[in-house]
Amino acid sequence: MPNPTAAMLVIGDEILSGRTRDANMHYLAGELTKVGIDLKEVRIVSDDRDAIIAAVNALRGAYDNVVTSGGIGPTHDDITADCIAAAFGVGIDVRNDARAILQERYDAMGTELNAARLRMARIPDGAALIENPVSGAPGFSLENVHVMAGVPSVFQAMVASLVPTLTGGVPMLSQSLRINRGEGSIAEPLGALAAEFPDLSIGSYPFQQNGIYGVNVVIRGTDAGRLDAAMTKLAAIAGLPA
Amino acid sequence: MPNPTAAMLVIGDEILSGRTRDANMHYLAGELTKVGIDLKEVRIVSDDRDAIIAAVNALRGAYDNVVTSGGIGPTHDDITADCIAAAFGVGIDVRNDARAILQERYDAMGTELNAARLRMARIPDGAALIENPVSGAPGFSLENVHVMAGVPSVFQAMVASLVPTLTGGVPMLSQSLRINRGEGSIAEPLGALAAEFPDLSIGSYPFQQNGIYGVNVVIRGTDAGRLDAAMTKLAAIAGLPA
Repeated sequence: MPNPTAAMLVIGDEILSGRTRDANMHYLAGELTKVGIDLKEVRIVSDDRDAIIAAVNALRGAYDNVVTSGGIGPTHDDITADCIAAAFGVGIDVRNDARAILQERYDAMGTELNAARLRMARIPDGAALIENPVSGAPGFSLENVHVMAGVPSVFQAMVASLVPTLTGGVPMLSQSLRINRGEGSIAEPLGALAAEFPDLSIGSYPFQQNGIYGVNVVIRGTDAGRLDAAMTKLAAIAGLPA
Repeated sequence: MPNPTAAMLVIGDEILSGRTRDANMHYLAGELTKVGIDLKEVRIVSDDRDAIIAAVNALRGAYDNVVTSGGIGPTHDDITADCIAAAFGVGIDVRNDARAILQERYDAMGTELNAARLRMARIPDGAALIENPVSGAPGFSLENVHVMAGVPSVFQAMVASLVPTLTGGVPMLSQSLRINRGEGSIAEPLGALAAEFPDLSIGSYPFQQNGIYGVNVVIRGTDAGRLDAAMTKLAAIAGLPA
């Protein structure tokens, strides 16, 4: 049985303008890989209502899980929750359990739960909350769409809350070998190796460092014995005369 | 007149598995912003023929420019060029001008231009080559789709070759202010500011550092005078009593 699949939707003008470098995608990719959920696609869109709705609807129909990042804070540009509700065609309003979490948090800090902060308690009808131990304001899951914050520390805490609730698969194992030779000189035997092990994924990632061309070969699969067998043959390929 | 738009398609299992952190998106975003081309969407897909073709066709119809990254080397997992040809419904074969570039390069290095390396001279019919001063093997442009390498140093060199050939727009200017207060306490006046300056994009990016909650507010637009006017009002907002 193939592993469950996932897609990620990153929402944020700041990433598309080059101002900020996204960190959440790389983190999520690693966490999903550990539990055998295959991240198959990532999309990054701007803080634009139509773009967000279209992407959510495309991804939730195509993959088992969709994780979103960004746009659930208290300011005018935080429109993700409303877009999710619109994508599903459901209502959205301040919900009592989410409001109670915020009230407790801000009471403890001696900060007013003003109208702007209360926006973070707006939850689409039918959603389940995702716990946020870092800053209180919850994320939420609506069917297979999991809506989380963009601030990396909060995103990571929400991933920790979410992932144990997802159906995992067979964790992907990987081994890699760094070969200090041009990719073109090992391409042919590498292709033959890939053909011999169709159950494994054999990736070739060239690098260039201090004028040296080399390649990292990564072999991924779920069967440790097969991985070992392929790595043995890869080591022989790496030893071929240049 | 609105600025020209662009999308990016990153091709690579290694990014989706969490093994590698993409660097090309952030670089491209900055370079396009400088010349007034708005990067509106990024997609990351795996080394999967159907996924690549579907994404190329969706993006090339929706945006003025599409830049791809990855999958144009000599190994079995380098399938981008063939997918681009399939997406456009055109043929692909080794082309003499691309072969000549590779031949000269490998002759100078005393390396054989073997069958695997010759794959890098396979160019879809009708494409124009993109120069690669770093490692020789060219990228190519087919209509509005620009196909480039995934290795960051090569990608960056190809961007430098490509960008001057694109139609630019009005460069986006930006100013930012770091405010050491919770996002929720400035959300209301910030929303009013955004409503007062509908020609500007006002983004609010919360951070958390050493237990302090704060926010970076970024104002973007093409008119320097309007930016200055909004920044003056933002400074007043930042000085509001907590």
